[in-house]
Amino acid sequence: MNVEKLVDQMLAGDRRALARLMTLVENGHPATNTILSRIHAHCGQAYVVGFTGPPGAGKSTLVDRFTGALRARGYSVGIVAVDPSSPFSGGAVLGDRIRMQAHYLDESVFIRSMSTRGSHGGLSRTTRQIVELLDAFGKNFILVETVGVGQTELDVMRVADTTVVVLVPEAGDTIQTMKAGLLEIADIFVVNKADREGANRIKVELEAMLQLRPTAGWAVPVLLTRAITGDGVETLLEKVMEHRAWREKAGLRARSNAAVRQEEFLLALEEEIARRLAAAAERGAFADVFDRLRQGTIDPYRAALEVVEQSDVIADALRT
Amino acid sequence: MNVEKLVDQMLAGDRRALARLMTLVENGHPATNTILSRIHAHCGQAYVVGFTGPPGAGKSTLVDRFTGALRARGYSVGIVAVDPSSPFSGGAVLGDRIRMQAHYLDESVFIRSMSTRGSHGGLSRTTRQIVELLDAFGKNFILVETVGVGQTELDVMRVADTTVVVLVPEAGDTIQTMKAGLLEIADIFVVNKADREGANRIKVELEAMLQLRPTAGWAVPVLLTRAITGDGVETLLEKVMEHRAWREKAGLRARSNAAVRQEEFLLALEEEIARRLAAAAERGAFADVFDRLRQGTIDPYRAALEVVEQSDVIADALRT
Repeated sequence: MNVEKLVDQMLAGDRRALARLMTLVENGHPATNTILSRIHAHCGQAYVVGFTGPPGAGKSTLVDRFTGALRARGYSVGIVAVDPSSPFSGGAVLGDRIRMQAHYLDESVFIRSMSTRGSHGGLSRTTRQIVELLDAFGKNFILVETVGVGQTELDVMRVADTTVVVLVPEAGDTIQTMKAGLLEIADIFVVNKADREGANRIKVELEAMLQLRPTAGWAVPVLLTRAITGDGVETLLEKVMEHRAWREKAGLRARSNAAVRQEEFLLALEEEIARRLAAAAERGAFADVFDRLRQGTIDPYRAALEVVEQSDVIADALRT
Repeated sequence: MNVEKLVDQMLAGDRRALARLMTLVENGHPATNTILSRIHAHCGQAYVVGFTGPPGAGKSTLVDRFTGALRARGYSVGIVAVDPSSPFSGGAVLGDRIRMQAHYLDESVFIRSMSTRGSHGGLSRTTRQIVELLDAFGKNFILVETVGVGQTELDVMRVADTTVVVLVPEAGDTIQTMKAGLLEIADIFVVNKADREGANRIKVELEAMLQLRPTAGWAVPVLLTRAITGDGVETLLEKVMEHRAWREKAGLRARSNAAVRQEEFLLALEEEIARRLAAAAERGAFADVFDRLRQGTIDPYRAALEVVEQSDVIADALRT
């Protein structure tokens, strides 16, 4: 496969090339770091909005309407739907994604579903890589939606410039248990299905909680929406734009500061080493160790501690 | 911290030492591989039974009753509850775990909840390590319960000698979508809440599906249970024992064959390298690269590809 050509096609606007590159990166193809390096200069223009919250909060519908609002203003949109508990990935369509059919035929909207299966280097890292591909592809806005509010989802949200936490009026208990993590990451709270009882009460509760938190110049708003009718979606978009303007003034960027680049370097290095070690094992580089493991004269952990100290063995194994 | 002493205390039956070792391993403590190597000779006696299935299938109650049945026969039990979507871990008690209170004060039952947060090297790998600790601690049976049926959960089940897939009569659709993965891993199917409508229909459907699958000497049974009343739990235990006897006759062991040991070695090696690289970065081993990343004269992926080729830099970084 000619990866360079695939990248060129993608950069020229070929959606199928984009999809193929996503699959390569998800599967941890040997050329992953080469691909990411080649697109790097084309990244940094897209703005990433994350949507997270408990299942059933109506996130997919909200993302759908938010996409519509962005499209109405002429922006192109990439959508990454992350479901850590789903065995489906890649081209597969999540149940909720069916609702996105309004935009399915819109050439300016690219939708990608991801799951644990498609995450060679951890779901949050793979999500970031998929986002980079959409960024290089030229999407103005990238919406990342997660299902649930577990640690995986919180990690995934680190890719976002603006994180929208979506709740429903009945989510009182969820807030109690999750509040630390959710309060930490929320730039905007949305109480969706706001026609239901308790919407205002949860809004007031959230606002009270938020007041106890020191703000670094951005006061987290709590908005009421009804995604199904579109109520409140324009206000949400305005608040996202406000947050964006505030971040830009403050010089904040989720994916391009030095700390993120250093972390990304270390992760890429780990991944590259892991990939090369696996390939070395395939071609028999650890035949000795494997023999001893088979005979039971050494255990796997002791063997690892021994091998890591043998710099010539490691150097040999890392050679491609 | 004296890790050797902690291991000795654990091997002598100290539950608190066991819990502390679990936390160290979950957090990827530098001594992880040393700990695992030290307990390795004490492992291999426990039998691991996995319980998986969609949320709401009553797995926790079933595990609770199954534990009771094992205890009634004098076996000691370790329970690992794995929830990939939960931000809680370690000593924390999952909602469902509260039902386990019947066994909470039983010294012969040790319960551990795990989540993504507590999984430095991936959830399935950390689960295996927690299982090894319980095995070395001397538990006769270790029950691993997952929430949901995503890829993460399927991976977690690889640690099990016998995998029980728990469904409910209403799970028809779930089966359709999940059937490939579930059929692949199930050694025993359980239709729980079997008093509900459709229980027999789903049993017949499952049996029909199973007949299309080539068996390697073990015919996967479909059992009906009502965990809440205990109905069918004794039969389940008998079937697990039958499967165990069949496996032992066939020479199968989930955690101790050569292939597993080789995989474990490679994973331990990767983890050890990742840990040492992170420590090296902390002490400034990559100051050069970090400067160039800050200046933007190199991207993280190109930098990783460069560094991996410099065997002296790698060897230096891997030194502790």
